[in-house]
Amino acid sequence: MTNLPNDPRLALMLLSSMVEPGDADLDDLVEETGPIEAVKRLWEGDVAERLRRLTSAMVACTFDPADRAAQIAAATEACGARVLVPGDPDWPEQLRDLLLVCDADEPHVRPPRCLWVRGRHDLAALCSRSVAIVGSRAATEYGQHLADDLAADLTEAGWTVVSGGAFGIDRAAHLGAMARGGATVSVLASGVELPYPKANGPMFDLIVERGLLVSEWPPGSSAMKHRFLTRNRVIAALSAGTVVIEAANRSGARNTARHAAELGRVLMFTPGPVTSSLSAGAHQLAREPWEARLVTRAEEVIEDLTGIGGPLATPPPPQRRPFDRLTEIESRLVEALPRGYVVEAARLAAAAGVPTETAAETLEHLRRSGWVDRIDDRWRLARGGAA
Amino acid sequence: MTNLPNDPRLALMLLSSMVEPGDADLDDLVEETGPIEAVKRLWEGDVAERLRRLTSAMVACTFDPADRAAQIAAATEACGARVLVPGDPDWPEQLRDLLLVCDADEPHVRPPRCLWVRGRHDLAALCSRSVAIVGSRAATEYGQHLADDLAADLTEAGWTVVSGGAFGIDRAAHLGAMARGGATVSVLASGVELPYPKANGPMFDLIVERGLLVSEWPPGSSAMKHRFLTRNRVIAALSAGTVVIEAANRSGARNTARHAAELGRVLMFTPGPVTSSLSAGAHQLAREPWEARLVTRAEEVIEDLTGIGGPLATPPPPQRRPFDRLTEIESRLVEALPRGYVVEAARLAAAAGVPTETAAETLEHLRRSGWVDRIDDRWRLARGGAA
Repeated sequence: MTNLPNDPRLALMLLSSMVEPGDADLDDLVEETGPIEAVKRLWEGDVAERLRRLTSAMVACTFDPADRAAQIAAATEACGARVLVPGDPDWPEQLRDLLLVCDADEPHVRPPRCLWVRGRHDLAALCSRSVAIVGSRAATEYGQHLADDLAADLTEAGWTVVSGGAFGIDRAAHLGAMARGGATVSVLASGVELPYPKANGPMFDLIVERGLLVSEWPPGSSAMKHRFLTRNRVIAALSAGTVVIEAANRSGARNTARHAAELGRVLMFTPGPVTSSLSAGAHQLAREPWEARLVTRAEEVIEDLTGIGGPLATPPPPQRRPFDRLTEIESRLVEALPRGYVVEAARLAAAAGVPTETAAETLEHLRRSGWVDRIDDRWRLARGGAA
Repeated sequence: MTNLPNDPRLALMLLSSMVEPGDADLDDLVEETGPIEAVKRLWEGDVAERLRRLTSAMVACTFDPADRAAQIAAATEACGARVLVPGDPDWPEQLRDLLLVCDADEPHVRPPRCLWVRGRHDLAALCSRSVAIVGSRAATEYGQHLADDLAADLTEAGWTVVSGGAFGIDRAAHLGAMARGGATVSVLASGVELPYPKANGPMFDLIVERGLLVSEWPPGSSAMKHRFLTRNRVIAALSAGTVVIEAANRSGARNTARHAAELGRVLMFTPGPVTSSLSAGAHQLAREPWEARLVTRAEEVIEDLTGIGGPLATPPPPQRRPFDRLTEIESRLVEALPRGYVVEAARLAAAAGVPTETAAETLEHLRRSGWVDRIDDRWRLARGGAA
């Protein structure tokens, strides 16, 4: 008989050490059975083939899962961290929004299972009025100067700056905010005891003292390339909006930007010289269907975030063909589309209870009559939204 | 008996030498009586008090209006210029669009009465596929480099560059386009025989050789401050779109931009460093209700102008509350609003045959139900337009 962790939190910590965040199979299992039972099933091999393969090595070499979970808890405590799970009072509820945008192509967009945090603050409270500042590691002096200034002024105005932990824009944003006494949130792609990159150590020490280090991975996890991409969705989801400052064309910052836009968060960018390849990625955001807003200073960021004189203060959306004139299937699809989100057709079809092919065809009709917009292979309510 | 010019064109030239372009009183008189009769009435003092005051000095010292018109014609010929009037085959018909946006506050937005041109080209043909590039006289190296590049690439792609004649952006745009063999159009605020500023003389000589100098003022007219503002509407109206490159906050380029937007032309701007006050005016355009498009190279300008993959290729506008459910007065106001134009309430009321106060109130209703947008004190069809 396997020795199971006796606490759902411990079980989630153990599971997080075994399967990468956002694994739909594991998350579905946890949702179905609860985390303790999920651990039991894994150790009994009573799970789908894919999950068994993913976890078999760990299961084979771990005789006592409860003990293993206790070790993770000890490592967590040793570095002065704690673990938050959904339902905790300081769990940021806005992370749930990720549920609405994840789809079959991007399972890793699912909400985090648990978060390791280091620092004294309440994560939910800090992020209740937060803005992400992201951009290139190889930022120019200009970009770093902007990030520093913007972060400082946003801090002064009572906004929490959320970012990663990289050199360049991330670093400038943290330092700018902390220089004005701000508590910043650094979301990592490694364990919170050894934030990456090491050379940013003094900055991370300062963040632990004044803000929060956050990670989905247990202590001992190292930063891997795919983990940065996974991490980006958390930066976007935690914040009311994301400002992109200098991003090369295929950069992580643009990945974060896409998450922000899909989540219905306010997406902003700062302009720069056309001749700078680092600004090109930011400029490109203005010409994509995301409708990123150009911002040049903190007042404009706040205006866009709060809608004072900004887009939220503009006239109400136009009325369209009255909702009650839509066909049954049309109205189910429109109702299934949450305002501000960009959703895959298959996911939408499932939510609306409509066959996938019918959905595809009907969405095309709805697009032509102005109800929805298509963005790549996804759909969102057209500007102005539904009735 | 006064000796009148025997040709409407001569009469218009004479009138242009007496009253500034866009004078609503004179233009209304000319429309009512024709230009020759208008001259007659001026010399007989048979006009409204204001027009009489404006013209009395000239009338008093000009015994023979026909002779005076002939002198202007001679001066025109002497500098190798010719005069175009509405109806001429090379008169750019798009100038008529100005009729739709002029209003009581801005009488000078009316279309030109006649145009002096120097150069071999057909103005209408040149401008049938043209784009205005405008910006600061005190442009940075960066801005001039951008203007030069953009003008060159647009020329290469078969677009005519329209601009003023100032140092900075205007000059860089002309030279960039001409360096690739392009015929550019320089719209002046002085007579075409002495383009301002003098120090740009060699450039103007090149434009006469390869493109066109254009002015609403007869030879001998000097560039005055208010004439630049009057001139700007012509630059905007001639072109399918206007690109603003570096503009200080209260600059002429921003004035041209506003005309372009009000005329329903595509308004674009190039970004630059946030730290540059010259780029600030351009950036501001992105945050104004004009929905200026960020462009960084010629392909993007062309995309926006032609709608290939650009805004014109986006889904058709949403449908709203069906037109037939509007009240009589509402539908008259909506019908009177031409798509893409921004019109003053009083003007709209007149066009719709609705009392001004009723119009103001009804427009507010229409705004709330998403039919129209308010921009400052003017109105336009909301994005998506009417049914």
